[in-house]
Amino acid sequence: MIIGIIGGGQLAKMMAQEARKLGLGVAVLDPQEECPACGLADYRIAGSFMDGEKIRKLAEISDVLTYDIEHVDVETLKELEEEGYQVHPSPRILQIIQDKLVQMETMKRAGVPVPKFVKADKDELEEKAREFGFPLVQKTRRGGYDGKGVVIIRDEHELTKLLPADSMLQEFVRIEKEIAVMVARDQYGNVEVYPVVEMVFNEANILDFLVAPAKIPDEKAKEAQEIAIKVVEALDGVGIFGIEMFLSEDGRILLNEIAPRPHNSGHYTIEACLTSQFEQHIRAITGLPLGSSELLIPAVMFNILGKGYGKPRVVGLKEALSYPGVYVHIYGKPLVRPLRKMGHVTVVNRNLDKALEIVHKVKEIIKVVGDGS
Amino acid sequence: MIIGIIGGGQLAKMMAQEARKLGLGVAVLDPQEECPACGLADYRIAGSFMDGEKIRKLAEISDVLTYDIEHVDVETLKELEEEGYQVHPSPRILQIIQDKLVQMETMKRAGVPVPKFVKADKDELEEKAREFGFPLVQKTRRGGYDGKGVVIIRDEHELTKLLPADSMLQEFVRIEKEIAVMVARDQYGNVEVYPVVEMVFNEANILDFLVAPAKIPDEKAKEAQEIAIKVVEALDGVGIFGIEMFLSEDGRILLNEIAPRPHNSGHYTIEACLTSQFEQHIRAITGLPLGSSELLIPAVMFNILGKGYGKPRVVGLKEALSYPGVYVHIYGKPLVRPLRKMGHVTVVNRNLDKALEIVHKVKEIIKVVGDGS
Repeated sequence: MIIGIIGGGQLAKMMAQEARKLGLGVAVLDPQEECPACGLADYRIAGSFMDGEKIRKLAEISDVLTYDIEHVDVETLKELEEEGYQVHPSPRILQIIQDKLVQMETMKRAGVPVPKFVKADKDELEEKAREFGFPLVQKTRRGGYDGKGVVIIRDEHELTKLLPADSMLQEFVRIEKEIAVMVARDQYGNVEVYPVVEMVFNEANILDFLVAPAKIPDEKAKEAQEIAIKVVEALDGVGIFGIEMFLSEDGRILLNEIAPRPHNSGHYTIEACLTSQFEQHIRAITGLPLGSSELLIPAVMFNILGKGYGKPRVVGLKEALSYPGVYVHIYGKPLVRPLRKMGHVTVVNRNLDKALEIVHKVKEIIKVVGDGS
Repeated sequence: MIIGIIGGGQLAKMMAQEARKLGLGVAVLDPQEECPACGLADYRIAGSFMDGEKIRKLAEISDVLTYDIEHVDVETLKELEEEGYQVHPSPRILQIIQDKLVQMETMKRAGVPVPKFVKADKDELEEKAREFGFPLVQKTRRGGYDGKGVVIIRDEHELTKLLPADSMLQEFVRIEKEIAVMVARDQYGNVEVYPVVEMVFNEANILDFLVAPAKIPDEKAKEAQEIAIKVVEALDGVGIFGIEMFLSEDGRILLNEIAPRPHNSGHYTIEACLTSQFEQHIRAITGLPLGSSELLIPAVMFNILGKGYGKPRVVGLKEALSYPGVYVHIYGKPLVRPLRKMGHVTVVNRNLDKALEIVHKVKEIIKVVGDGS
């Protein structure tokens, strides 16, 4: 059996490792010859994620298609699915998720708690904003990624900050914590849910570190897991999903975003859980039974973001590993760019505060730096 | 930094994965183009493990040399070490281990408990055997592997079974259990010791399954771990070592064999321990700090041995994974041969008896079968 992956980044690489471990073959479509997953692929197709012809070529040599990025040619995937090709998660889901308004409407209909929101087309933004009330969050319907396409409008003086695009206006949620849950679901509807994790962001809205399990009351954790399962069931999703949520200051849990693939917030599962998110995804999309998502030991994860440009050099590895429970993952990307995800570190410890302490030290030690070339 | 591995089998493959995860490069020397580790190597050299010229070529492109098999050209490795190349574990250790008599003599001198033994050259075997007394075990000094070169002589009527080779005659130990301990040691003398595991063999003397941790009293486990550390310290070893021992019916723990590399009896560490034997080996030989060897969850491991000849086909994967805690590793060897190690399965469970129960079922289900080509 061959798994065709659209996108050859670190998520595809870690999927490919698990696929090969299970004796399955891997084909990868990626524009870059030296993509992280390329070295692990039995077949490589060079091309864009938006190139329908290349995606079709990938489908023809694969038994099941998946992807490590949402920004792919959904139309071709839909055609392929209609022709009987296996595509997981379904392109139907991608289509829903790619439009933030449709995503929220679908989830609201399914009974998933979401922040209050309203549709606002490009030509009626100001009017709708005044009507909706301040403060509010504008999210453009399409093209947003890692905080792009999102702006906070605190009052009517900030209306000039509105982005000129078809949007959704959302309630400004006073956030106590940002949390996430990974959910795996197989073709028969069986579900495995991972623990709730807590994401801590820095001032630039970049993930500072992730804590597993989240320090929230048990009943809130249970509620978050139930919401995450509801989301994936409402989508009739097959594969692994990262469900990001807000825990608001007034105690509500509200859906924020859905990632229909392995997710940064699930990297801790490699060391800390019985079955990693990557193995779980491979099992789910190939019709194999899911594994246990049990957490064996608490963990804190942070991303190693690139510094400078050029060929990567890892700095501080030896000192970083001198702390207990430190596990380093370097993705093997050929070039560094500032803030590019070059790797991640998971620190495990029975005492979560101890793990956090170590993370704060190790974050200052380990770097992936460009050689300036 | 490039790690040069002599041998590209499954052990090299799993080493290479860990090396790459840490951002290190990998070069592999193996006669087969499609060796399991070859796909993960940055550099590949085609050649025999006994080909000194090829080993030298590997050394020239590597920062440190290691191996996944003991039957390598030790003379060349010794020359390279003298010239200042890093080779871990040292070829000095290989030389000791390749001669079973020298291995036992060295260990006895170091105060490691070993079975009673005596040197017996080819031309004095019968005489020495009568002198030593029955029953005894003859082990040829060289070339023995996986039970080859070993014969049990129960009484003088069986003297005709003696193998015509320079040998060591050893006390026939009445074995209660065969146990093993993995020990990692770095260049600074720091040691990490793994739990004692128990190996259960079938009638053909092939490993049936391995239980971690061994069901033996705590004080015996501690004694076995101390012996294993003593062995590695006596060798001044750097890297990971598999130390096989007997627990005799009369309660003695005696050294059986030393493997100066990751070992089949340490595969369970991938799922069950914080740091796998492979990551530990890579850390040790590259001067990085060792990780924790803590066991997170009990495990039982068995090998998937090939059935028939030809291209491999994995049978029963889906049914095998339907049992809880089952993790399957297929090595990606291009061809099946009867009894060839094609993969392994680790079953984890908080209840070791439950894990054993599952192993007995899954062993009958999952197979790697040749297609007859």
